Amino acid sequence: MKKLGMILIFFLAYAGTVWAGDDVPTALTNKAAIAAVQTHADYIWTLIAAMFVFFMQAGFAMVEAGFTRAKNAVNIMMKNLMDFSMGSIVYWAVGFGLMFGVSKTGLFGTTGFFLSDFKVGGDPWVLAFWMFQVVFAATAATIVSGAMAERTKFIGYLLYSIFITGLIYPVFGSWAWGSLFNGAGWLEGLGFIDFAGSTVVHSVGGWAALAGAIVLGPRLGKYTKEGRVKPILGHNIPMAAVGVFILWLGWFGFNPGSTTAASKDIAMIFVNTNLAAASGSIFAMMVSWFKFGKPEVGMTLNGALAGLVGITAGCANVTPSSAIVIGAVAGVIVVFSVLFFDKLRIDDPVGAISVHGVCGAWGTLAAGLFNINGMTLKILAVQMTGIVSCFAWTFPLAYLLFKLIDMTIGLRVSRQEELEGLDAIEHGGNAYPDFTTINHGTLRTSGGSGGSSYEPKSSYATKPLVNET
Amino acid sequence: MKKLGMILIFFLAYAGTVWAGDDVPTALTNKAAIAAVQTHADYIWTLIAAMFVFFMQAGFAMVEAGFTRAKNAVNIMMKNLMDFSMGSIVYWAVGFGLMFGVSKTGLFGTTGFFLSDFKVGGDPWVLAFWMFQVVFAATAATIVSGAMAERTKFIGYLLYSIFITGLIYPVFGSWAWGSLFNGAGWLEGLGFIDFAGSTVVHSVGGWAALAGAIVLGPRLGKYTKEGRVKPILGHNIPMAAVGVFILWLGWFGFNPGSTTAASKDIAMIFVNTNLAAASGSIFAMMVSWFKFGKPEVGMTLNGALAGLVGITAGCANVTPSSAIVIGAVAGVIVVFSVLFFDKLRIDDPVGAISVHGVCGAWGTLAAGLFNINGMTLKILAVQMTGIVSCFAWTFPLAYLLFKLIDMTIGLRVSRQEELEGLDAIEHGGNAYPDFTTINHGTLRTSGGSGGSSYEPKSSYATKPLVNET
Amino acid sequence: MKKLGMILIFFLAYAGTVWAGDDVPTALTNKAAIAAVQTHADYIWTLIAAMFVFFMQAGFAMVEAGFTRAKNAVNIMMKNLMDFSMGSIVYWAVGFGLMFGVSKTGLFGTTGFFLSDFKVGGDPWVLAFWMFQVVFAATAATIVSGAMAERTKFIGYLLYSIFITGLIYPVFGSWAWGSLFNGAGWLEGLGFIDFAGSTVVHSVGGWAALAGAIVLGPRLGKYTKEGRVKPILGHNIPMAAVGVFILWLGWFGFNPGSTTAASKDIAMIFVNTNLAAASGSIFAMMVSWFKFGKPEVGMTLNGALAGLVGITAGCANVTPSSAIVIGAVAGVIVVFSVLFFDKLRIDDPVGAISVHGVCGAWGTLAAGLFNINGMTLKILAVQMTGIVSCFAWTFPLAYLLFKLIDMTIGLRVSRQEELEGLDAIEHGGNAYPDFTTINHGTLRTSGGSGGSSYEPKSSYATKPLVNET
Repeated sequence: MKKLGMILIFFLAYAGTVWAGDDVPTALTNKAAIAAVQTHADYIWTLIAAMFVFFMQAGFAMVEAGFTRAKNAVNIMMKNLMDFSMGSIVYWAVGFGLMFGVSKTGLFGTTGFFLSDFKVGGDPWVLAFWMFQVVFAATAATIVSGAMAERTKFIGYLLYSIFITGLIYPVFGSWAWGSLFNGAGWLEGLGFIDFAGSTVVHSVGGWAALAGAIVLGPRLGKYTKEGRVKPILGHNIPMAAVGVFILWLGWFGFNPGSTTAASKDIAMIFVNTNLAAASGSIFAMMVSWFKFGKPEVGMTLNGALAGLVGITAGCANVTPSSAIVIGAVAGVIVVFSVLFFDKLRIDDPVGAISVHGVCGAWGTLAAGLFNINGMTLKILAVQMTGIVSCFAWTFPLAYLLFKLIDMTIGLRVSRQEELEGLDAIEHGGNAYPDFTTINHGTLRTSGGSGGSSYEPKSSYATKPLVNET
Repeated sequence: MKKLGMILIFFLAYAGTVWAGDDVPTALTNKAAIAAVQTHADYIWTLIAAMFVFFMQAGFAMVEAGFTRAKNAVNIMMKNLMDFSMGSIVYWAVGFGLMFGVSKTGLFGTTGFFLSDFKVGGDPWVLAFWMFQVVFAATAATIVSGAMAERTKFIGYLLYSIFITGLIYPVFGSWAWGSLFNGAGWLEGLGFIDFAGSTVVHSVGGWAALAGAIVLGPRLGKYTKEGRVKPILGHNIPMAAVGVFILWLGWFGFNPGSTTAASKDIAMIFVNTNLAAASGSIFAMMVSWFKFGKPEVGMTLNGALAGLVGITAGCANVTPSSAIVIGAVAGVIVVFSVLFFDKLRIDDPVGAISVHGVCGAWGTLAAGLFNINGMTLKILAVQMTGIVSCFAWTFPLAYLLFKLIDMTIGLRVSRQEELEGLDAIEHGGNAYPDFTTINHGTLRTSGGSGGSSYEPKSSYATKPLVNET
Repeated sequence: MKKLGMILIFFLAYAGTVWAGDDVPTALTNKAAIAAVQTHADYIWTLIAAMFVFFMQAGFAMVEAGFTRAKNAVNIMMKNLMDFSMGSIVYWAVGFGLMFGVSKTGLFGTTGFFLSDFKVGGDPWVLAFWMFQVVFAATAATIVSGAMAERTKFIGYLLYSIFITGLIYPVFGSWAWGSLFNGAGWLEGLGFIDFAGSTVVHSVGGWAALAGAIVLGPRLGKYTKEGRVKPILGHNIPMAAVGVFILWLGWFGFNPGSTTAASKDIAMIFVNTNLAAASGSIFAMMVSWFKFGKPEVGMTLNGALAGLVGITAGCANVTPSSAIVIGAVAGVIVVFSVLFFDKLRIDDPVGAISVHGVCGAWGTLAAGLFNINGMTLKILAVQMTGIVSCFAWTFPLAYLLFKLIDMTIGLRVSRQEELEGLDAIEHGGNAYPDFTTINHGTLRTSGGSGGSSYEPKSSYATKPLVNET
């Protein structure tokens, strides 16, 4: 079949002759040929961009696993693999239709379920567009995963992932990005600016994460009765850092790819994306240095992500200089936001609420503030409407969803399972059986009352679960 | 030299003027210009796709290393680096000519060795095509690596890699994908459908892996005398999982890139590839959950790969709905196949025989069963012919090759080396000298007769091999 | 905003009609349209290539961290994140203008600072070009990082990174790659061949690394008083190996992307890049096998990188067969070069001076020796001029820079910090708090005189720094 490629190439090299038969108006045929080549470029750009956005799934998995404990690493990999796998099927069946199907009301679409808009022999653009959209849809669920890490039942995770990718995300998405075959969603109709999804993707994920973290409650031992915060260290910082590099890379698909067309416009989006990420990490590092006395790696990594989330809405309508400012502000915000949620005793192991929820809101506002064509109060009002409506739609619905799961199949693992680790109990697995690992947070055998009094059991060699002879 | 780019861009922006001198028929010149731009798009698409397929080498290395023990991780990295390095040279010298050279018989090509078809100043398409093909060729050898992990001599590995990439793979490849400058191979002539290589790449790798695993015999302690199977746990599950994400990513180059042309056709191939992987992982997870009581990570990861292998043959000629079914069946098959080979006491540390051999055969059959233009008995007969001929060509030849290596330079490491790990003995290395590691499978000092009676020696701190002071 | 893509696609599909209004000369309009499509292809190729070069940052981080000790892994991730982040801002502010701004003297540019050459509504090519250049600029600083690993103060690192990316690299770059809007730099004017930067990027990085390693001095315990070399093992060889795969992948952006245009020329550059890397790794493995008795993983990995650096200058003007020879020679050189610098007691933890400095010089010479259009003494003289001028510019200036930093804020960490690890002292972090790790190189409590008499303290469980209860 590879040879087909060769034949096609040959065909195209002489295509002029084919397209312009003697009886065809030559100039017109050339026009169609030019449009066809441009379309091919649009396909490869959009689909290559989708590949990079897909790769962000690996980045999210690495950041989440790296920032949490070794005893839950298998669970985190399973979650990230599954939210994309189940998300793909759900978005194929339901989500895409809700988001881009024909809509009479501007509230959600009602056609195109199961990719039924694609007919064999018809225009395959709907497939290319679906491919680009499905990798976005999966991102929202993945964001939630981070905030709920180390204490969520796997079956509960699967269930809520389905609802986020199949319902919560696509309905809001239809408001802001309209429907594919019909008029605009109501937010889009107002002139809402969110080019690649600071609000549509990241804030939706972030506010659902907030609801989940509240319903779940904090991990055992994170907050003491005396009100102190006990950091729970991530078990593999290099893995988390490489994950951030992969996310940064993937964002070059996320933002410029949102043109879904090969055009000159992508250049500025690239530059803005890069500069915002750079200034985000620099400013988060500086703030952490000032506040904690050391340039702290977790905050710095989250600063890069904050800058990326911040520029996502405005990447196509602000200047590079503005992108630096937007990223810098996001880098400052993320540090204070992480500390703020810790004060509220809302335990978010990876900082997802701050990075995606809060900085997503900031980025959406900033897209109005730094608008390349000028800022008006009307634009700001529309941007605020989008920000508020996102929270008003996502947070209560997600809260309800998590409460319902909690009351039925259960959302949180048992105390015993949390202490031993989800890998062993949920999956019968062990991420690192050849390494001597330390289980931070096993139960204190002495100690009095209930609550979260426990201590790390030092030098606990994880027992090989299966491989005994 | 970067400036050349600028000049070229400038040239092209005003190319119309250049192309259409006063004395040149304007319309004709435009046609040639359009074909040239399309050709440029074909080049960048094909070569970017090749990049992603190349990246699969890293994915395979991570899956293989992650699913095996820490004491062999250096060896696995060396193997994967070397099968691509030596494979590149061998495929340049011999393999590409055998596969795509001019063939009088339809059995193999006899021209184009050492890339001699490329002349300076000539059409460089042969170079682009070679680049895309070489990353495929290396995949076959890499697949074999996994099934033979943790007990194969490095020098034996190098030798068989050369023969797989230089002989076994390209000859079969020439049957199915024809020769570049001449008529079709005999399988292609029958109408065999294997768009991106379920059979050509994956089954060839899988059946060679089967031969290798049989000749080598199982790892010490994998099967007890009483007939029990003792799982040997992989040492780094997050690494294996990230490897699967990278393979999934690379498959978007592997399948859609096989068009070797920028066209609308890639959209459906993308969607099919993604949906089959998603349903493969979901179904493998569900089957493992049902059979073992837990959603098992190793099976789930292999389920994603099984879905990908399964859709590879038919990715361009089945509908998205069919892709979901094909992937789901592959996900079910892979679990039972892994258990089946374990019953036969054929030890395949990563499940390569099941994922690539068995699911490759399934995918090839499925490409006929779910053919978008209708299924006929003739198509199925041709697909079966391809499946059978692949096994008939690959398995005996690979078996012979491994036996010859075994009888001459030796294929399997010594018992002592296997117990201590290949890293120390073969490479004088140590993958993790700063970590306290546990060597699962060191010799039981007590214990009577020969055979595989050994036990894990717990909390064995790998001695720093070189770094003593 | 996604819908905009749809609209654009729709527009383009019917663009012929739009472009060719009744009152517009049809043929001329088609010409402009063809040029526009080609330009779009140039943008996507150049920017996708930039993405892959960006990803090399992750590869460099993984190689550097994998080849060094666990106690410094957080520091290495911070350095690599920061040299790209600060580098992006500095190159935006100063470097790009020095390198590609208008130059009256041919010595450096004086316009285009802060991307001021880009006007809203103007040609965005300058943005695409900047994006491609910034990922190159950051590479030079990253190279230096490796040679100075495990003993450099973080604040000193930040400072010298700024000067390398903002001054040393771009000024030399302007000599070889000219300025964007004006005449050529003086080296380019002589006919200097360095297509993608064997000298401009890699030797600049390598010679700055040499200066840094000399000023810093070797790590404690690397060289004994009796003149023996004590290898300090890398803590995660699989991570380093995956890093090399990522760098190899990124080089397909680095070299072919340097066309900054979608053209047929990229095919040969791809093939040359791949073959040189392959033969580099094979020959380095063989030499290490011959010299040390085992195929050594560190040398083999560096051999692949040596081949890649070696082909970077000549990738567009040598044949594939020559590429194999160039890579093979680089693979041999790198082994002997690493041993040579160890004899000089210049401690380079990852071999950066040999890989990038020495093999960069070799590659630049080789681009002349194997020139596809014939080799002349004049070409060789020009290549030598480039090689020598690179050393003459970079080494003294970098040496001065490091000395100045050393005398002011300090370049090297304290003895105590080096022994405990930079992660704890510089960043208050711990890369692997859940693993029992061994700190190779803690102070010997007994033992007499000063100097570097210390020993590994075996089975030292890294104390959780923060996570105590």
